[in-house]
Order: sequence, then structure tokens, then C-alpha cells
Amino acid sequence: MSVLERLTARLTAVLPPDAVVTDPVRLRTYECDGLTVHRATPGVVVLPETTEQVAAVVRLCREHGVPFVARGSGTGLSGGALPRADGVLVVTSRMRRIVEIDIPGRRAVVEPGVTNLAITEAVRDQGYYYAPDPSSQQICSIGGNVAENSGGAHCLKYGFTVNHVLAAEIVTPDGDVVELSAGDPGYDLLGAFVGSEGTLGIATKITVRLSRAPEAVTTLLAAFTGIEAGGRAVSAIIAAGVVPAAIEMMDALAIEAAEAAVRCGYPAGAGAVLVVELDGPRAEVEHQFAAVERICRDSGAFEIRTAASAEERAAIWKGRKSAFAAVGRISPAYIVQDGVVPRTALPRVLAGIDRLQEEYGIRVANVFHAGDGNLHPLVLFDDAVPGERERAEIVSGRILDLCVEHGGSITGEHGVGVDKARYMPRMFTEDDLGTMQLLRCAFDPEGLANPGKVFPTPRLCGEAPGVRTGVHPLVEAGLAEQF
Amino acid sequence: MSVLERLTARLTAVLPPDAVVTDPVRLRTYECDGLTVHRATPGVVVLPETTEQVAAVVRLCREHGVPFVARGSGTGLSGGALPRADGVLVVTSRMRRIVEIDIPGRRAVVEPGVTNLAITEAVRDQGYYYAPDPSSQQICSIGGNVAENSGGAHCLKYGFTVNHVLAAEIVTPDGDVVELSAGDPGYDLLGAFVGSEGTLGIATKITVRLSRAPEAVTTLLAAFTGIEAGGRAVSAIIAAGVVPAAIEMMDALAIEAAEAAVRCGYPAGAGAVLVVELDGPRAEVEHQFAAVERICRDSGAFEIRTAASAEERAAIWKGRKSAFAAVGRISPAYIVQDGVVPRTALPRVLAGIDRLQEEYGIRVANVFHAGDGNLHPLVLFDDAVPGERERAEIVSGRILDLCVEHGGSITGEHGVGVDKARYMPRMFTEDDLGTMQLLRCAFDPEGLANPGKVFPTPRLCGEAPGVRTGVHPLVEAGLAEQF
Repeated sequence: MSVLERLTARLTAVLPPDAVVTDPVRLRTYECDGLTVHRATPGVVVLPETTEQVAAVVRLCREHGVPFVARGSGTGLSGGALPRADGVLVVTSRMRRIVEIDIPGRRAVVEPGVTNLAITEAVRDQGYYYAPDPSSQQICSIGGNVAENSGGAHCLKYGFTVNHVLAAEIVTPDGDVVELSAGDPGYDLLGAFVGSEGTLGIATKITVRLSRAPEAVTTLLAAFTGIEAGGRAVSAIIAAGVVPAAIEMMDALAIEAAEAAVRCGYPAGAGAVLVVELDGPRAEVEHQFAAVERICRDSGAFEIRTAASAEERAAIWKGRKSAFAAVGRISPAYIVQDGVVPRTALPRVLAGIDRLQEEYGIRVANVFHAGDGNLHPLVLFDDAVPGERERAEIVSGRILDLCVEHGGSITGEHGVGVDKARYMPRMFTEDDLGTMQLLRCAFDPEGLANPGKVFPTPRLCGEAPGVRTGVHPLVEAGLAEQF
Repeated sequence: MSVLERLTARLTAVLPPDAVVTDPVRLRTYECDGLTVHRATPGVVVLPETTEQVAAVVRLCREHGVPFVARGSGTGLSGGALPRADGVLVVTSRMRRIVEIDIPGRRAVVEPGVTNLAITEAVRDQGYYYAPDPSSQQICSIGGNVAENSGGAHCLKYGFTVNHVLAAEIVTPDGDVVELSAGDPGYDLLGAFVGSEGTLGIATKITVRLSRAPEAVTTLLAAFTGIEAGGRAVSAIIAAGVVPAAIEMMDALAIEAAEAAVRCGYPAGAGAVLVVELDGPRAEVEHQFAAVERICRDSGAFEIRTAASAEERAAIWKGRKSAFAAVGRISPAYIVQDGVVPRTALPRVLAGIDRLQEEYGIRVANVFHAGDGNLHPLVLFDDAVPGERERAEIVSGRILDLCVEHGGSITGEHGVGVDKARYMPRMFTEDDLGTMQLLRCAFDPEGLANPGKVFPTPRLCGEAPGVRTGVHPLVEAGLAEQF
């Protein structure tokens, strides 16, 4: 009997009858998340319903030395929820209760499997919403949002998941149930936990901030002849002290794709479009709208449309929101990249991407959260053309180099996961990475919580720098393997 | 030759000639921070000028097994910078360079000894400022602000230090120089570092966000007959969707003290005053001002004054800002308490404080950041009256119990330091505290960085729960002491 079989027998004893999946066909449905290039069939899948069950699963994994990976809805784009063939996949989809809604306190307590949009739906009638809005918000889980510190089009003004999570009950890698809370005395472990991609434990209850729905929302579409002019408008808007709820930009190729897919009817001949959304008190929105419209015209916009109703707003957003999928209309395959650059470096980085297209003969469609410099280049390729996939992967990687060279980051909102672990050394020194691993080792000395993600070279915890440099006489004595 | 003497000799070799203080009279000037009830003369004081010098000091401390404490301007109110008689006090007052101001990127890079206000002064002419504003902002250091995650009257709208620090270069307890950056891939160690009260290392460069100065600022003073009516107004303002830059409340005793000290001329007969500041685009401020004025009247304000100029604004703030010191006019001595309660629990907690005053015969003046439920009760006593100090200390502690009972916290912005470590178990379970200590042990296994602060029962790192429960076979083998 293998370790995994012994563990499975024990899991069956502590979980409800249908909560342990071992059927190979059902296991296959969990083999990847939204990044389908990485696949692995999990050893066993569990579907716990309570915190106590999650804690029991984690304790059993530890007892057996078996790795575990948590999974929400599986919409992640960095392979953060890629299962382990030798491990347990802990799926939170049965933990979907909204535990408490506290309108006067402006907070809600939810289980990790609750979808992002379900929170907003539960409080919308009372004039509130949950602010972070990943494109997958209809299906993605709040637990996954916490693991990846998810963003969305509106995080320019409202921030990322970390800015909206007030507390969490987590199961640590050693099976303890612990409460983390923002602004508590002591260390802000909640801040470190959010975005830790499943390596520090599993959130079992999450307290989120509820935001008041704005009094007014106005959406504007501005068409430019090229992205340089659009970029100038973005800089000028921010420089004028306006913080829109969102500023999204699409280049000609992305517009072409969206047009082919959803007939969004963006202005003909546009080399770039900018979608700017303003929200807040009506007086403020009106004031800012006038400023944004003037700036767009001054920056060379040849057409400006304004949404006066929710329907018109949906029409403007339709092209943008469909952009990723739409690229399928103009290319058999593509890689969605996710990088960040300082807003001021946008023109130079976009010029660099242009040069890469020419150098490698690969097309790149640019869709981005322009306000915070978060690029989502879509690198197009055709598997039928020999070598094209390889060249697309090189271009995709070199775009990240460009981001880092300009003081940016290898990921804006999709996370590191399994996919970008290899890029971490481009951003961080060995000391930086070693310092991060100190935290991982403190929480998870045996490396069982989502191993293989985030860090390029997982090491034995005894090898972490603080130890290596001579803290532990035991290490010097050659006993490090025992840690 | 003692360990400290040997270390001092080595320090003298790596630091500039006048940067090592051993003269007993000069050492005494560092014996406490703003909380003077705790005092200790440091073993030796160093005044490094560069990151490399700080790293060299920390490495030497480690080599000799000597504890070190970092100190900025010494304005802290929880004894976080209380020196160790057996240790080194690392004073950052010579690290005062503003390294870089990047207006287009809205950030400044500064050394830790730079004062909070100096950042604003350096960018004010360009229309920017640094948002967090502790009352001590003219002298407190940004390094101390980072250690304590300092707040201020305006953090209701703008957040705490952690929301305005974008990156930090730190010297870890093992002497490595590491860069931490907000929103980077990997763990948000910056979030954990800010507010860690000197236990995870020493910040040597800090990158802060610069905020755009608001177009308009309006300050309003509303007088009520009692704090219940004032509290109702606060709730109604927040419920109306208005987020003022600040909402401060003072009760009758605090008003009496301020009147005696600075003749602030608040309305006669007021049982409570509310200072509400609104800022932002002019159109928004005007809109919100009308709402706040109406709500105050509806809640029973009998007089409302509005500042139309910077001078009138200063006059309104004068009473509030002098309140702590002013209490000296009506009482020989006092304890400044710092607790937090959910805004909705304010009336119940204030009623509880009233009962404590009666029960113990101790007067309490209430001054608070009402918008975010951060209370600063001033517990008055006279050392000439036998037993009064002791009763004041009991009342002060029981106020914290009240805060915790109502779902609040034992500190809002002054930190835990040495003073409140004993209260941590009132808020946290042993597992919670054990999980925090995992982080401390990971960074500082020998416990040399500001030991004795934050945690009530510092333990050997080998005893942390993750280890104790059987991770390390070495521990079970009785070798834990060697960690």
C-alpha cells in the first residue's frame, strides 16, 4: 500500500462520504487551472465542507509527508493551483456559505469557495459592493483571489485584494487554525498571507470590506490614431490629479480581434482606444469628466463617446472584456503575458515590444490597465508553423525582461505560480529570495504547502540563508537534512 | 573585558570617530522614548551614517550575541525604542538624506532619520505631500513611523504608514541588506515589516508615496451638549457615504483642559466638540460640506463654525492638537491610552469608561479619532494622593479590556512596544501568538533584534509551535536549546 493510499484511507475516515475523489476520470477534471499549458492529475482530491475538515486534511498530509495544493474555481492564470500527482488537491468549492453580512460595520465574512461576484450580489440591494473585480469575477473564488492577491480593471483607484481583506481564518501548514487580522498589533501576517499563492496555508474564512456603491459612474471611450497619443492622454490625466476608477487601453490588433469577435463597434481607423471610467459623488464625476474629455482631445483623440446609461457603458466595456478570448479569432493560439512597468516608462516599453515583434516575426496584441502600468500583451502564434511557438515564448519572456529593466515587475495580478517561478531571479537577488524563503520555512518547514510554486529553486529549509550563515550549529555539523 | 566592551572596540573600528557613544551622561539622554515610565540606559549608542555601517553594526552584534534596538527621534508612546542596558542602541538621526524625489513617479526615497514633515516640506512647492500625519510629525522620524506603522488624524481617509510605504531597504537581523517592495511577486514582506516595531530588522532607505495636495480643504467645528449626540453625528456622516479626511471628537474634560492651556475659544457649554475636515476636488468638498453640516444640525449640534482660511483652520485644530499636553493644566499626571473599537460600538464603550470613572474615582478625558474608532483616553491622576496612580493604571488597563470585549484592539497607532506586550494575550490565542513568533524566529533566531518588545513571553525559537509539535526530530531529541 503506497503512502498516498494509506493517506486516502485516513481521509475517507474524517471527511463526508462523497468528499474524497479517487476515480481517475473525475481526477482528470482538476488537472490544470486557467493556464492549461501546465497539467498534472492530482493523486487524490478532497472536497471539505468545514474549517475542521480542512485542518484534519492538512494534519493528515503532514503526518504522511504528502504535499497538498488548494484550489478554488481554477481560473488562475499562472498555474498556482496546478495539482501534484503525488499529493492532495484541496478543493474549496463546497465551502460557499456567506457567514455574515454586517452593513453598519461594512464587512462580510465568507467561506473561500464563495465567488467574487456573489459577495456583491448579496449586498447590492443595500447599496454596497466588493471592489476588486478580476475579469473572471463571475466564477473565480474569493479564496483564490486571496491566494493570488487578485486585481482587476478598477484596482487603479480601489487597490488589490489585499486592500479589501480585513481578516482571515487560516489553516497553517501544520494544521493549526489561526486568525489573522489587518492592523492588529504584532506582525501584519495577513498582508504576507494575501498573495502567498497557497504556500503559507489555506484560508477557510475571509472577512472582506464592503464598499459603498458610488453615486455616479461615467464611462468614456476615446479613439486615437496610435498608442503614443493614448499613452500621452493617460499621463496627462494622472498628472492632472484625476484618479479614474479605470483606464484601459487597447492597441490596433486588440481592437481588430474584439471587432471580429463581438462587433463592439469601436471607432473605425482607431490605432488605440482608451476606456476611462470615473466614479464617485456626482459633483466630482462631472468635474473630472470635463477634465478628462479636454485632456483626451488635447492629446489627439479623434472621437470621444460617453456612456449615459448602464447599457451604453456595457457596450463600451464589451470590446475590452472580450479582448482575451477574441484574440482567438485572429490567431490559432496565444500566450497571455502579465507584466508591470512604471506608468512613465510605458512608451519606451511599448516601443521595445514593437522591436521584439519585428525581430522575431511574432505579432503582439496589447491590452492593458494603463493607469497602473499593468500590461497584458497577447503573444500570438500558430502551432502549425514550425518554431513559432518557441519564438512566441521567447518574445513573451523578453517582454518581462523589458518590464524589469524599466523598474517594473514580472507579474501585475496573475501571480507567479508554477509558470513564472523561473523569472523570479530576474527581479530579486539571492538574498531577497532567501529572505522570502525564511517566511515559507517558518510556516512550512517540510515544504508541503503548494511546493514548486513561486520560488525557482526550492531548497531544504535548513539551507535558508539565515541558517546557512551560521545561526544553527546543527547545520554546520551536517545535520541540515533533518530540518 | 566584558562582551560589550569587546563589541564596543570593534564598533569603533567600523564607524566614524564620533559615532560611538560610551560617555555615561550622553548615554542617559537616550534612556527612554516618549513613554517615560520605562527607562534603561543603553550599553552603548551608535550613530551610523550609511546602510553599510548599520549592516556592520548588526553583524557585529550577532557575532557577539548582543541585542540591539533601533531608535529614530524617540517620540514613540509605547516604549518601542526602550534601550537595553546590555545592548546597542542604533540611532538613525545622522541618516537624514532625502535620496531622491520623483514627482512623475509620485515617490520619494529617504533615509530613516528624515522627519515625517521634512518629506512634505521637500515637495510642497510642487503640490504634493506625504499623507500620514502623527501629532509629532515635526520631529518624529520616518524610520520610527515605519517601525510603528504610525497613523494620525487623517488616516481615516488616507490610511496608515503601511499604505504609503512602497519599498524599503532593510538590514535583517543577520546583517543582510535586502530590498522589500509592495506588490512584488512573492510574499509581501514589506507589509509584515511595517509595524514590526524593530523586531525584524532596521530600515535604512524608505520609498514613500507622495500624494497630491487636495484642491480644497474645509474644516468644521460642531458643538454638542454631550458625546452621545456627537457620536450619533459621526455614525450618520459615515452612513451617508462621506469619508472626511478627519473626524476628531473631544469630551467636556478635554475641552476644559484645552481651554485652560491654549484658550482655543470653543463654544461655551459644549459637552463635546467634533472637528470634521473635508478635502478633495472643490466640487466634492462643497457637496460633502453641505451634507455634514445638515447631519450635525440634525444630530443636535447647537453651534457650527467653519474655517474659511488656513488661519481659521489652524484655530480650530489648535484645541485638538494641544489636548494631550493641555491635560497637564488640569491634572498633575496622566496616562495616554490608545485603543480601538468598531465605530458602531463607540457609545457602549464610552458608557463603559464612564462607569470605570465612577467605580475607581478617577477622571478620564476623552480625545479620539472618532471616524475610525481610535480612542485616546487620558487617564488623570495625582501621585500625591496615595493609591491614585495604581487606580489610574487599573482603569487604563480595563479600558483596553472594554475595547477587546467590543471587538476592538489594544492599540490603534502607538504600537505594542514594551508597554502593551502584557496585553497581547487578551487579544490573541496562544496559536495566534505562536504563529507570529514563527516569523520573528525565521528572521531573528537568536532574538537579538529589539528583544522584550511586542511579545509577552518571548521564547526560544526552537519552542515555537510549528517546531514544538514535532516538525523537528532534533527538538524531540532534546536539542532544541541549540536552535
